[in-house]
Amino acid sequence: MQYTLLFLFLSLATFLSGGLAAQTEEAGVPASTNIPGREYPRILPDNRVVVRIHAPEAESLQIDLMQKYDMQRDTGGYWTVTTEPVVEGFHYYSLVADGIPLMDPNSQTFYGMGRMASGIDIPDEDMAYYQPQDVPHGQIRSVNYHSDITQAYRRAFVYTPPGYDQNTDTRYPVLYLQHGGGEDETGWPNQGKTDFILDNLIASGEAEPMIVVMERGYATDPDREVDPNAGFMGGNVFGEVLVEEVIPMIDETFRTISDREHRAMAGLSMGGFQTFQTTMTNLDKFAYVGGFSGAAFVRGGDITEIYDGVWADPDAFNDKMKVMYVSIGTDEPERMYQGVNAFHKMLEDAGIEHVYYESPRTGHEWQTWRRSLKQFAGLIFQ
Amino acid sequence: MQYTLLFLFLSLATFLSGGLAAQTEEAGVPASTNIPGREYPRILPDNRVVVRIHAPEAESLQIDLMQKYDMQRDTGGYWTVTTEPVVEGFHYYSLVADGIPLMDPNSQTFYGMGRMASGIDIPDEDMAYYQPQDVPHGQIRSVNYHSDITQAYRRAFVYTPPGYDQNTDTRYPVLYLQHGGGEDETGWPNQGKTDFILDNLIASGEAEPMIVVMERGYATDPDREVDPNAGFMGGNVFGEVLVEEVIPMIDETFRTISDREHRAMAGLSMGGFQTFQTTMTNLDKFAYVGGFSGAAFVRGGDITEIYDGVWADPDAFNDKMKVMYVSIGTDEPERMYQGVNAFHKMLEDAGIEHVYYESPRTGHEWQTWRRSLKQFAGLIFQ
Repeated sequence: MQYTLLFLFLSLATFLSGGLAAQTEEAGVPASTNIPGREYPRILPDNRVVVRIHAPEAESLQIDLMQKYDMQRDTGGYWTVTTEPVVEGFHYYSLVADGIPLMDPNSQTFYGMGRMASGIDIPDEDMAYYQPQDVPHGQIRSVNYHSDITQAYRRAFVYTPPGYDQNTDTRYPVLYLQHGGGEDETGWPNQGKTDFILDNLIASGEAEPMIVVMERGYATDPDREVDPNAGFMGGNVFGEVLVEEVIPMIDETFRTISDREHRAMAGLSMGGFQTFQTTMTNLDKFAYVGGFSGAAFVRGGDITEIYDGVWADPDAFNDKMKVMYVSIGTDEPERMYQGVNAFHKMLEDAGIEHVYYESPRTGHEWQTWRRSLKQFAGLIFQ
Repeated sequence: MQYTLLFLFLSLATFLSGGLAAQTEEAGVPASTNIPGREYPRILPDNRVVVRIHAPEAESLQIDLMQKYDMQRDTGGYWTVTTEPVVEGFHYYSLVADGIPLMDPNSQTFYGMGRMASGIDIPDEDMAYYQPQDVPHGQIRSVNYHSDITQAYRRAFVYTPPGYDQNTDTRYPVLYLQHGGGEDETGWPNQGKTDFILDNLIASGEAEPMIVVMERGYATDPDREVDPNAGFMGGNVFGEVLVEEVIPMIDETFRTISDREHRAMAGLSMGGFQTFQTTMTNLDKFAYVGGFSGAAFVRGGDITEIYDGVWADPDAFNDKMKVMYVSIGTDEPERMYQGVNAFHKMLEDAGIEHVYYESPRTGHEWQTWRRSLKQFAGLIFQ
């Protein structure tokens, strides 16, 4: 009996080669968001993107990357398309097969658009701040805990700065950092590159060492009836979960400084709205506030009336709030740009001190929010 | 001027409702692996799975879940299929659109099959051990570090047991735990549910508190020429990276007990092969070894010849090795079952002490490996 053990798993080796072999004559470079080893999508020097899919049975395929493109059938069952130049930064995109927006098997997936979606990261001239560098590295930890309000187990991601495990007498300030609608708690760790941004800022001295908590912005209380007219955030009790459960859990689990002067909250888009909702009604708990492409929802346009009149006395508010930060990308959809810009002007007109930033060229996307995090993290806890 | 800020991001609310509304008259329950809020796929009481996709433009769609099924066009552009009963545990599956195996937009994705893939988790009667329970929870941390061998930044996931941050004088043993071919370092944290398995075992006293390191089993040295005849693992220097870089980095970063009596390695499929390759050539560093659906590669069938004759003197080996563990699922493909079973018999014939386990009903899949981890973690460091 011959005991040669040739396992079927050896055949898995074919997976490891990762699709198409390298073709050195090809222009451009594989995207950093590709499955390791995959040659497509490729990014050309002018930021056009070449997508290529093996689909000998397909009759038509499209790529939806900022806009829809019909793919062309190549030889050997390959379909390809070259897009227009794509602005730098992270974009969700879809392979449209059988008319359904699906995922490109060559790319990594990210939770966005309310589902798992393909992502592509176009390099930026100024991208070193979100790349891994030869500096001390923090960690991102997944923390499971039970929430009594939602009657469910929840997961938070928590960035701890370099040296956290060694400097056991040191306590740290905390930034609560929220994702946008259709995304979840994986957004800031994955798309946002929070760990590299913070590692680099802390190493250069531009930001104080801090803990960053990235939670899931959806929460419902199964015992609470939801007013059907309450609007899109009706029934979402995330603000309560954050203040009553997450903050105490974090203060108990990590070496935090638990006063308001050492606690910040920021969020993007929906998370920015949630940030204003939560912080402006809990000013005893937060001294730093950031809205990235997201702002307060000012019904009727009177900024002095909302949040129990917190903005009616600008001197008192300015005295209490250490940093308020509002940002928007210059290429965001017009209503978003106008909305956030109008909020900024309202604050200005009312004499509410704040930092306002417009991210050049970028849209309602992660490049706007990476830049915003870099700025905001450098302003707080100073 | 009316300052009503009605942001476009409010329209993202449609994402939050997550596709189809709940239809209480439907049989079965949504899979735990669904995108939150999605009603399909549903699992029926007999473990048949109902998959439903909205695709009004499609002309034919298939589901590949253990076997291929043609989907049927429903009213209103919905396509559905009900599978045969599916064995309990975690399965990768594909939606086949335009002939391409793609991902079901209703499900979460996992790195497997050499790409991101849809996954579905079928409940097991004995599943409490990998569910979150009301016990103290450990954390899984992502650790970024630079590897000089591969000249690249790499990421390890590290489980720290409950109390790690509080018991700052306690040092812990370490299990290095590897994924299979076509998977990566996210496999054990996501599909494997390592954190819940360890939390529950530690809480019940069935396992010692330990650190678990989950690394990426692929590594190449860009300066080293690869022998084209070296076979499927040729050029993969992961064993070297583990021994020369990962272990020192972990011992420096975490409060480990760094002798061989407190260091274990286990892996599944390809990772099991890598485990034997690494541990049998580094017996001064490991005292516990586990191969889950993966074994040593015994050329010619003579077990006494490989690894410099480590198994030629069974008494010496048995004295040195604290626990050796080999497992296989009863429903794995015949060649895999025969391969691992033959390895077990070779060890037995040679007088090499080991624990051998057959997981009932399960295939070359995560349920076999969750069960194996549960058993192996309970045997080591005792």
